[in-house]
Amino acid sequence: MKVITLLTDFGLKDNFVGVMKGVILSINPKVHIVDITHSITSHNVREGAFMLYRSYRYFPKGTIFLVVVDPGVGSERKPIALETKRYCFVGPDNGVLSMAAKEDGVEKIVTLENKRYFLKYISSTFHGRDIFSPVAAYIAKGVNISSLGARLKTIKEITLPSPIIEKERLKVELIYHDKFGNLVTNLKKDTLLGFLKGKGFIATLKGRKIYKIYDCYAEAKNNEPFFIEGSSSFLEISLKNKNAAGYFSLNRDEKAQILIKSKEE
Amino acid sequence: MKVITLLTDFGLKDNFVGVMKGVILSINPKVHIVDITHSITSHNVREGAFMLYRSYRYFPKGTIFLVVVDPGVGSERKPIALETKRYCFVGPDNGVLSMAAKEDGVEKIVTLENKRYFLKYISSTFHGRDIFSPVAAYIAKGVNISSLGARLKTIKEITLPSPIIEKERLKVELIYHDKFGNLVTNLKKDTLLGFLKGKGFIATLKGRKIYKIYDCYAEAKNNEPFFIEGSSSFLEISLKNKNAAGYFSLNRDEKAQILIKSKEE
Amino acid sequence: MKVITLLTDFGLKDNFVGVMKGVILSINPKVHIVDITHSITSHNVREGAFMLYRSYRYFPKGTIFLVVVDPGVGSERKPIALETKRYCFVGPDNGVLSMAAKEDGVEKIVTLENKRYFLKYISSTFHGRDIFSPVAAYIAKGVNISSLGARLKTIKEITLPSPIIEKERLKVELIYHDKFGNLVTNLKKDTLLGFLKGKGFIATLKGRKIYKIYDCYAEAKNNEPFFIEGSSSFLEISLKNKNAAGYFSLNRDEKAQILIKSKEE
Repeated sequence: MKVITLLTDFGLKDNFVGVMKGVILSINPKVHIVDITHSITSHNVREGAFMLYRSYRYFPKGTIFLVVVDPGVGSERKPIALETKRYCFVGPDNGVLSMAAKEDGVEKIVTLENKRYFLKYISSTFHGRDIFSPVAAYIAKGVNISSLGARLKTIKEITLPSPIIEKERLKVELIYHDKFGNLVTNLKKDTLLGFLKGKGFIATLKGRKIYKIYDCYAEAKNNEPFFIEGSSSFLEISLKNKNAAGYFSLNRDEKAQILIKSKEE
Repeated sequence: MKVITLLTDFGLKDNFVGVMKGVILSINPKVHIVDITHSITSHNVREGAFMLYRSYRYFPKGTIFLVVVDPGVGSERKPIALETKRYCFVGPDNGVLSMAAKEDGVEKIVTLENKRYFLKYISSTFHGRDIFSPVAAYIAKGVNISSLGARLKTIKEITLPSPIIEKERLKVELIYHDKFGNLVTNLKKDTLLGFLKGKGFIATLKGRKIYKIYDCYAEAKNNEPFFIEGSSSFLEISLKNKNAAGYFSLNRDEKAQILIKSKEE
Repeated sequence: MKVITLLTDFGLKDNFVGVMKGVILSINPKVHIVDITHSITSHNVREGAFMLYRSYRYFPKGTIFLVVVDPGVGSERKPIALETKRYCFVGPDNGVLSMAAKEDGVEKIVTLENKRYFLKYISSTFHGRDIFSPVAAYIAKGVNISSLGARLKTIKEITLPSPIIEKERLKVELIYHDKFGNLVTNLKKDTLLGFLKGKGFIATLKGRKIYKIYDCYAEAKNNEPFFIEGSSSFLEISLKNKNAAGYFSLNRDEKAQILIKSKEE
């Protein structure tokens, strides 16, 4: 059975996600549908792109990723499907698919145009149900994406900001808070070590300091903020068994900058 | 594999939904269980009925809809199952099944009485687990609903309020806020157009005005509230990429009236 | 198809749960994955243990319970798998598995050591993905837990506090609030009846009184708090169609003591 994953900003209050699953199973009952998350901040395409990027590699070869973070629904933004080396992606061409697809290696992109693979009635507000879900179900059934519409050469791209070195300080961005209040940055451990060249560091976030990097939560003292390599390979700022977002007085998903300077040990 | 859907007010904090799935799979491992939503406001039978009505038509023929919004659990309200033209519904006889079942065409109704198809121990507080889930699992296994208990002639009905014309104004009700803050009304586009007879309109909701109806979100200006035909065919009040419930200072699921009068263009 | 259930404190905001499912399906596509809940309070091992205990018995024989409430991830706490009379459990050895496993009857315990059954790269922060999910998927595929690592004699245990009789009063603990605001206690009906010996009672919780025990919600008057045997067989404090946690001014998951004394009828 093919796996179709769902990643949206639809939340779980409404029936949007359930209805998409109904549409998929009406066309193709032999699929395994897996929710990645439906809690993307409403209309936040960048957050959706990042979450897909963190997730896709853990799914079986051949998985179809159905992604709907689509503030431009019903406008001129194109609905697309694309094949990469190991996977297939379906969603709006607004960049939400780009980080994951580019990393895996894009092989073919098409615009979704062939109405034979849509629901009969297409609303202007819910292409997740009317276009993307049926298309994903047909792909899982074996329809070649070339049948879905004309080839496209490129897709809209979103990229993460990279850490910047400025006046001998490393400027790092917070890109995501997880459920535990861990603060995911755009900094990789190797980049930090390369910048420090064996020295220690002082990092500053909203006026509070961070001095340590640890290999696991248990190494930290209580109430001491620290960097740790998170499960998606970016450094995260954490507190042992506490909420780091709360410690730094960050609102839900508030973005902020971290400045890191090296110091002699 | 048969599809069994779940729609409840149980939320996802507790183990209620997981346990219902355990019961179903213990009786019939060959089903596809799909959550429609578990976020119905506690005890709000009308909201559950409306959500089921918005959802059921997107599921495959033969789907069994298991619905538990059941403030009267353990009292004299009857547990029922019913067959419609294309589907099967299981839940309490408090109206929650009625909007969907009536539209699809009710063909047979039974009271759930045959304890052979229940769990052995029936609690007085969780018939979702003890009665409705096992019954749905057995129906999916091929048990005819006639075996479940005596025939009933009618079920309790819930209907949506209809828009009313009063002193040349159209009185419309808000019936639901979705996750994005879109405000679902009880008004269909045709009803509005029939009332306006080609004229424009001024709609008032909590002291603020709405002048426009658009075909897609992208047509709207920023910060301009407008009507749009929502995915469930009722008109919704929206703001482009913003939360209309917030714009109109509506609390979570607050109900309110919209008054519409026509005006010369 | 084997059933693998997931019970975690990961919430549904992030991609943690979706990624675990991706890992499982990559190894073993022939499983039925069921969420029990992901809303355990962060790091609350006791709450996870209680929720598993309330849930496990409703699942089919042979179900594999994957449980990740793991504040000590990456430290010296052991990852384990264990077989009981009817089930299999996988998770950290911090007590979270103990209430359910002990009741069903532990037959074999092993430490998870054989890296052949892990993901290739083991992070220090997400053993749910890197160790527990692949192990559960391999067990569902037929791998004997003896292949996973060395035998352990005992596991860490968590037990519920028992009601205590002190100065002729029964001291009872609140252990959980459900979504409806029902207050689950550690008191069983038989224990209460045994204590009362046919008399009535006055129970006190945060300065407010409870005088009644009912068999179903419908028996109660409006705004009258009462005891009722909940679906997990412990007595719960409820209000008919209202939120008892709100009535007693209890914060989310606030714990509190209930004092019960008998009185002449």
